[in-house]
Amino acid sequence: MARVVVDVMLKPEILDPQGQAVADALPRLGVDNVTSVRIGRRIELVFDGTPDAGKARQIADRLLANPVIEDYTVRVEETL
Amino acid sequence: MARVVVDVMLKPEILDPQGQAVADALPRLGVDNVTSVRIGRRIELVFDGTPDAGKARQIADRLLANPVIEDYTVRVEETL
Repeated sequence: MARVVVDVMLKPEILDPQGQAVADALPRLGVDNVTSVRIGRRIELVFDGTPDAGKARQIADRLLANPVIEDYTVRVEETL
Repeated sequence: MARVVVDVMLKPEILDPQGQAVADALPRLGVDNVTSVRIGRRIELVFDGTPDAGKARQIADRLLANPVIEDYTVRVEETL
């Protein structure tokens, strides 16, 4: 079986307060060598039949991501 | 440069209302061949120096994921 994975991340120039909060918490866990944390979304789409990356790209652009502030990547991923 | 990517997804047996809402909206976009949508988080950790997947796994387990209801995967990803 295969599925299409859409990764949506804030554009690099957009502040990510959620990631910053995690980064600020890491020293309390004894981790002091992480310089950046960014948090985005991972969306898994399972198609009936052959996975369709082009269709997934349309879905991402219209429904899953906000292209003004977010970048997304689309890829087909094989599963067991 | 390399970074560690942590993908956090709800376990398959846990309901995902957010993904279900997207799946329910797809027919209105003219997409009728998607059978499942699951939405999780993608976290990118940039380390000072060599990326440390083992350390990232500890961070994921203690801070990024809820192991009761979520599964996570950790991998090192090369960037340009």
